[in-house]
Amino acid sequence: MSESQFEKKEIVKKSADFDRWYTDVILKAELADYSPVKGCMVIRPYGFAIWENIQKEFDRMIKVAGVENAYFPLFIPYSFLKKEKEHVAGFSPQLAVVTIGGGEKLAEPLVVRPTSETIMYAMYAKWINSWRDLPILINQWNNIVRWERRTYLFLRTTEFLWQEGHTVHETKKEAMEFTLKALHWYKDLYEKFMAMFPIFGLKSQSEKFAGGLSTYAVEFLMPDGLALQGATSHFLGQNFSKVFNISFQNRQGKIDFAWQTSWGLSTRSIGGLIMAHGDDQGLVLPPNIAPIQVIIIPIKENSAIAKFCAEIADGLKKQHIRVKIDDRSEKTVGWKFNEWELKGVPIRIEVGDKEVESGQLTVVRRDTHKKSSFPLSNPSTSVHSEVHCELLGASLSHLFAEIQKDLYEKHKKFVTDNTYETDDYAEFKKIMKTKRGFLYAFWCGDASCEAKIKEETKASTRALPLAAKEERGSCIYCGKPSNYRWYFAQAY
Amino acid sequence: MSESQFEKKEIVKKSADFDRWYTDVILKAELADYSPVKGCMVIRPYGFAIWENIQKEFDRMIKVAGVENAYFPLFIPYSFLKKEKEHVAGFSPQLAVVTIGGGEKLAEPLVVRPTSETIMYAMYAKWINSWRDLPILINQWNNIVRWERRTYLFLRTTEFLWQEGHTVHETKKEAMEFTLKALHWYKDLYEKFMAMFPIFGLKSQSEKFAGGLSTYAVEFLMPDGLALQGATSHFLGQNFSKVFNISFQNRQGKIDFAWQTSWGLSTRSIGGLIMAHGDDQGLVLPPNIAPIQVIIIPIKENSAIAKFCAEIADGLKKQHIRVKIDDRSEKTVGWKFNEWELKGVPIRIEVGDKEVESGQLTVVRRDTHKKSSFPLSNPSTSVHSEVHCELLGASLSHLFAEIQKDLYEKHKKFVTDNTYETDDYAEFKKIMKTKRGFLYAFWCGDASCEAKIKEETKASTRALPLAAKEERGSCIYCGKPSNYRWYFAQAY
Repeated sequence: MSESQFEKKEIVKKSADFDRWYTDVILKAELADYSPVKGCMVIRPYGFAIWENIQKEFDRMIKVAGVENAYFPLFIPYSFLKKEKEHVAGFSPQLAVVTIGGGEKLAEPLVVRPTSETIMYAMYAKWINSWRDLPILINQWNNIVRWERRTYLFLRTTEFLWQEGHTVHETKKEAMEFTLKALHWYKDLYEKFMAMFPIFGLKSQSEKFAGGLSTYAVEFLMPDGLALQGATSHFLGQNFSKVFNISFQNRQGKIDFAWQTSWGLSTRSIGGLIMAHGDDQGLVLPPNIAPIQVIIIPIKENSAIAKFCAEIADGLKKQHIRVKIDDRSEKTVGWKFNEWELKGVPIRIEVGDKEVESGQLTVVRRDTHKKSSFPLSNPSTSVHSEVHCELLGASLSHLFAEIQKDLYEKHKKFVTDNTYETDDYAEFKKIMKTKRGFLYAFWCGDASCEAKIKEETKASTRALPLAAKEERGSCIYCGKPSNYRWYFAQAY
Repeated sequence: MSESQFEKKEIVKKSADFDRWYTDVILKAELADYSPVKGCMVIRPYGFAIWENIQKEFDRMIKVAGVENAYFPLFIPYSFLKKEKEHVAGFSPQLAVVTIGGGEKLAEPLVVRPTSETIMYAMYAKWINSWRDLPILINQWNNIVRWERRTYLFLRTTEFLWQEGHTVHETKKEAMEFTLKALHWYKDLYEKFMAMFPIFGLKSQSEKFAGGLSTYAVEFLMPDGLALQGATSHFLGQNFSKVFNISFQNRQGKIDFAWQTSWGLSTRSIGGLIMAHGDDQGLVLPPNIAPIQVIIIPIKENSAIAKFCAEIADGLKKQHIRVKIDDRSEKTVGWKFNEWELKGVPIRIEVGDKEVESGQLTVVRRDTHKKSSFPLSNPSTSVHSEVHCELLGASLSHLFAEIQKDLYEKHKKFVTDNTYETDDYAEFKKIMKTKRGFLYAFWCGDASCEAKIKEETKASTRALPLAAKEERGSCIYCGKPSNYRWYFAQAY
């Protein structure tokens, strides 16, 4: 049932019950809803607008680098998936399988794509003959199905939306460079656009993509001390090119197998965004990603105020600011304040008689609740005959940048405050049992130590930082010599 | 196998073998390719860029009208589909069914969406309580699966991409107005963006959407005399709202069922675009939709020419013209001319020593092959020190508009020339056996006459024009009094 028309929407406090807060915010801010299909969610317009902003920004980034979008089939013959042994082993438990088509039992079952390496690379093999056909830089925005037993809105759903980039190169060096280039796109997107502070680097062999040689990831610490993997970039080497016969005549006239990468970012990122910045009142959206950046609320109903609000909104729209007026007469001003705080709109502008007369606007930041008074325009321009919003627009843009930076710094401080360098396994265990967070500890690289640590503390390796320096240390578990510290955390 | 690096790509002449020409163009211009999954195609980057342009334009149109995007699950419980009797009867033969998920047999099979009415309306019922919650104006861009026995690239594929808009209204009048508003968006998109001349109006009851009350469509005549349905807009009445219980408290405080519409446009539109404008040399793309609007071809290799080409390309990009330089050294100039004609790029600019020296550019139209000489800039600006492209950009934009108009007029003339008003069934049959086209004839509205005509001539009713005037006539089949002429054609 939806909310009553008149009652304020209540959410539990973030500090009181984080899990329930997360679900409350998503449902009541109308980002998403549960669907009648087990494990699948509905992304509602307000949530989808966030995804559209992520898409627009990331699409811009990859196109500048020459990546082109395309579309490959939803269905994959099961025989394709089986060609790469690790790949099929990794994805088999999670498959949705179509066995009936057009009223008839299919001769070969079709898998609903859990990722598209195999179907895409069968086509790549057909298209690539010479080094002159390389590189191939293709991305697709699509839907993915991985059967999940326990699901969680945005973070883990049976169907999700993502982009998957798949590139093919002449040389190992070029493919490795591209793998890292994609990793840095994700880092930049999260930092500059979503105001989130990542750690980023190499995943361990046990945590890598099934079928790839190595996986790089951006990882984020969430307020409950758990880590969230935000995006991954895989160096596939020649594993798939050998299996799918993506061979080409190289510059020396010889036949060679191609080098490949794949990289993806999903709607899961929205879950991270919600958790990282939200507070007891609800969502807090960074201005760069907010579907509505400014909400204008007339504090009483009269035609002068209505006209004034409309003129400000028009003026700001012309400056490409995403603005909306909430002039619903059936809601109280207090209800509206609560509603748009819940929805995380970065800035609220309140307009009453005083504002119309003075041309001074009351501007309230969502993240700090700080109120300021902003002049609509320079005193030299007449406010009453025609509203000019250039000064206001410029001031707001400046404020957006400040909010964006403050949110990033706040998240960075949280991550830094909750990252513990330790060489003592007793301390490691104690932290993981209590406050949690990132632990930065030596690990010898042995999969059995990693498995034991996970068994005993629920913490897995998250990443070896890209900029990690070689040191002399001892594995936190077995004590053997280790050269690098890894980030450990309990993960979503 | 892909083409040789050096051989010119050959396609059959459009006039010689239309069907093979269509497939040749799609494969050799690299718009799409057959996939290993029966009935599914791969949309390659060049073809997908056309779809992205259609998406961008249509998305802009609907958002101006307040429509918001969202995302609903790919899977639909079979029980949902069964709730509306006509709906399930219409779609049942075409379903792909998932029976296994996560390694286990599902208790209830899931259908891969053949359209999303049922899953969306189950959610709408949950979200709508009061007239204040209306209208709901939601669209989604997604993938659809309808099992097809005989498939045809773009025109009929088991999986396709589309948008589906689904709106909910308080009154019948408002819903009917919205149905026609969507119809006019499609008409405008095709006319202004794809340079195609539509007929548009009401579909007969036997041709309408399964579960709706009435369907409106835009229809296009193709060069082979067959009609292609380009998009549809359905007035659903209260059929689905009663079945899914989308009820609300109306302004009088009483409970009422909502009035609904749905409307869709798919990647099929790209098939129509290819057929409508292409010629013996390949694709001809209207400038408004062309992924590359201008191809610059250096007619020999030297650094002055290369620099000049780069400066022109940069200058035009700044004016938002989609431009590309083909400077591949392994291809001959002749090969490149052929290649970009095949790909339908509206304008070719040839650059040699003469052009660099004079600042006069040779500009060739793809549609007419007409060559013109365009000055790069006003004589007052120095061409050699710094290239200014404002004048060239303005001239090209003007030329784009001219090409766009010429293509539209050409298609309009073709449709007009191949539309026959007739009151004689013998003539009707003769035309349908020979040249085909649109037949504009009286029909009494009886489904049995319509079925007989289809049986005897393969022609179905395409539409009753929206602006049709009432006349006095006799049904072309049974001779009974008829008040309206309908368009008939054999259809894809």
